[in-house]
Amino acid sequence: MRILSHEIPSAVGQSVTVAGWVHRRRRLAAVSFLILRDRSGLAQIVVKGTQAQLLDELGEETVVQVTGTVAANPQAPGGAEIVDPVIEPLTEPAATLPIELWRPTVGAGLPVVLDNAPVALRHPVVRAGWEIAAAAMHGFREALSSQDFTEIQTPKIVGTATESGANVFALDYFGGPAYLAQSPQFYKQQMVGVFERVFEVGPVFRAEPHDTVRHLAEYVSLDAEFGFITDHRDVLVMLRSAVAGMLAAVGERAGGALERLQVELPEIPVDVPVVHFSEALKIAGADPDEPDLAPADERAIGEWARREHGSEFVAVEGYPMVKRPFYTHPQPSDPRWSNSFDLLFRGMELVTGGQRLHRYSDYVAALEARGESAEAPAYSSYLQAFKHGMPPHGGFAIGLERFVARLTGAENIREVTLFPRDLHRLTP
Amino acid sequence: MRILSHEIPSAVGQSVTVAGWVHRRRRLAAVSFLILRDRSGLAQIVVKGTQAQLLDELGEETVVQVTGTVAANPQAPGGAEIVDPVIEPLTEPAATLPIELWRPTVGAGLPVVLDNAPVALRHPVVRAGWEIAAAAMHGFREALSSQDFTEIQTPKIVGTATESGANVFALDYFGGPAYLAQSPQFYKQQMVGVFERVFEVGPVFRAEPHDTVRHLAEYVSLDAEFGFITDHRDVLVMLRSAVAGMLAAVGERAGGALERLQVELPEIPVDVPVVHFSEALKIAGADPDEPDLAPADERAIGEWARREHGSEFVAVEGYPMVKRPFYTHPQPSDPRWSNSFDLLFRGMELVTGGQRLHRYSDYVAALEARGESAEAPAYSSYLQAFKHGMPPHGGFAIGLERFVARLTGAENIREVTLFPRDLHRLTP
Repeated sequence: MRILSHEIPSAVGQSVTVAGWVHRRRRLAAVSFLILRDRSGLAQIVVKGTQAQLLDELGEETVVQVTGTVAANPQAPGGAEIVDPVIEPLTEPAATLPIELWRPTVGAGLPVVLDNAPVALRHPVVRAGWEIAAAAMHGFREALSSQDFTEIQTPKIVGTATESGANVFALDYFGGPAYLAQSPQFYKQQMVGVFERVFEVGPVFRAEPHDTVRHLAEYVSLDAEFGFITDHRDVLVMLRSAVAGMLAAVGERAGGALERLQVELPEIPVDVPVVHFSEALKIAGADPDEPDLAPADERAIGEWARREHGSEFVAVEGYPMVKRPFYTHPQPSDPRWSNSFDLLFRGMELVTGGQRLHRYSDYVAALEARGESAEAPAYSSYLQAFKHGMPPHGGFAIGLERFVARLTGAENIREVTLFPRDLHRLTP
Repeated sequence: MRILSHEIPSAVGQSVTVAGWVHRRRRLAAVSFLILRDRSGLAQIVVKGTQAQLLDELGEETVVQVTGTVAANPQAPGGAEIVDPVIEPLTEPAATLPIELWRPTVGAGLPVVLDNAPVALRHPVVRAGWEIAAAAMHGFREALSSQDFTEIQTPKIVGTATESGANVFALDYFGGPAYLAQSPQFYKQQMVGVFERVFEVGPVFRAEPHDTVRHLAEYVSLDAEFGFITDHRDVLVMLRSAVAGMLAAVGERAGGALERLQVELPEIPVDVPVVHFSEALKIAGADPDEPDLAPADERAIGEWARREHGSEFVAVEGYPMVKRPFYTHPQPSDPRWSNSFDLLFRGMELVTGGQRLHRYSDYVAALEARGESAEAPAYSSYLQAFKHGMPPHGGFAIGLERFVARLTGAENIREVTLFPRDLHRLTP
């Protein structure tokens, strides 16, 4: 019966079996050490005699099973090690790695890491990013499930390139044209008509022609949408509880990963400070006619929120309608502004959300204003939901990899993506 | 403050506000009834006077908010109704629907339901299938998370069409060729080298040229893969616990959906009966040289399991290697057979799983035997994981929509898919 390396300290004096990868071998004059890695961490095994000769033949990353006796040793990980081991290889001796996984920090540059992702991800520091991502997905789902949301899975192959038209991947669908969905926006709105509250965790696709440190051609989007709201402030409250759930789950389930990356979890206040877009421009000292916030402006607002509200999070509401998609609900008191917001974290945009239009006639007018028709095939089934009664609703979308990158301070979003896809990278 | 319709019976005598869709209007001589639908069910509202005139103008599916007093009435749903209501429309009056949602059964045929999915899914019976699907996804994740599995999200855009070559969707990737992943098989195996135990819930894509009741061009695959197994029997034990978790979650979270569909949950025994493929042919009275089980054979084996073991589930192990993919691990005692299995439910295949090869040299030989090279670009990054040490491992994949269809007895898998994609259908 196999035990995990983190269970070794509680088995002092007992005979145990562990299994995992040869993480490192250290040969001293009288004794050798095998550092074994399994999913729970590292184990130290003291090797002598013929077993030490066997170990010489088993390169790093060979998979082995080790049976031995647990002995207390304050200098071993967790205060215990395995002595008198019998080592049994479970595979062929592993070939020499392109990356030294046993070093505490990753010696190789990012391109080498990405080219060798199948093995580079085994490095405890490289895999830490994804451990945080996995925990964040769990927290997102739990937070929304506990508020009566229904999980949906909507089609990734769609018939029309709607939301922006640009940056869409085209494919051959049984001899006709089709596209990869850039977001589940239209479907999640329709599903508010069915389940009232829905979320989806799944891939979205952007044929992003720019090679930047924060864009991917495929990423995981955490989407939520729900009905019977008053306005976008209700959406912000729900977003706050989703982000709080994600942070809590990361703390509970990925504590080891946070330690390896030397990251401290931020706290999101119960009431996230909110500033109107027009006010945000003033805080940033920007031109009052600017339709968008520059990165420097966002940093200034982040600083302001920390200084004035002691918060690392701040929401900017009321973004100009001209910069928002057609389904955005205007601010009732002044339709130049919108009932939408960006949530900034440490002075950088983390999430966009807001209230959507819910009356069919408003969609007809909004599309007409952009020279489009609500009767066009691209919109007809989307808008069927609105013809037949939709409540006031809104939602948000969190880019998983971007969330993790912001949390860990990764300079390049690829550092926290298992197998990134971009302009230049389609493998591994 | 809005309450949900299922909370009405516990608020007798109080003034409450509910909100939802006009599900049905019934006008009698002296009084009208508004049946309001929200995410929790139906509410009966007794309408008189001017409010009844207002109701006349609000077609079915108009979204309304209703404030009134709760009165006990044994004939109302849950034994209570709302009287003296003030009705406030939250949207424009809804257009007349193509499908009558208030009828207890769905009057329209499947093509009409699918063409009008954005509104047809609002029918309590139509949406029931997806309620079960959502609960099943939750149960799958919980069962595996509790056994230390890490959730992964792997690329859906891939550089090579590997697993079968046929039935793959091709797309234009920044001017070059790429494909939609037919399964996360290669990636989940590689990730066993990183996290030991992984699962993924996500879309897979098959350019399925056959128009059948059980095939979709895009469906949700529940994948699991894990290391340090003895053989495929360990995989079957894990699969059993995943299916048990899914069934339990469906019972807990989708009880209403089961009732609406008049479905009883099956029980999966702790020890699923297992029969070898060669024995299964005998039970079915089939030719002992048959390399596969015909549908009639599967039904016969299902009958046998019910009769001999009192089980609606049965696993057939040892399928001939010639019918399994190249990464399948052979049966050590006789390499004509494989260490893989199909799990049958009520005489129909539900899940395929098994042990995979884990030695690099075995992959080289298996690919050579099929006239392919392990050094080919299609395999080189996949097999990098095996060059550098992989433990004995295996896994399985459950098609979500197929699972729900089998559970509910749906004749066509499209009945339990939100927005099906097939040879003829790319919208809505």
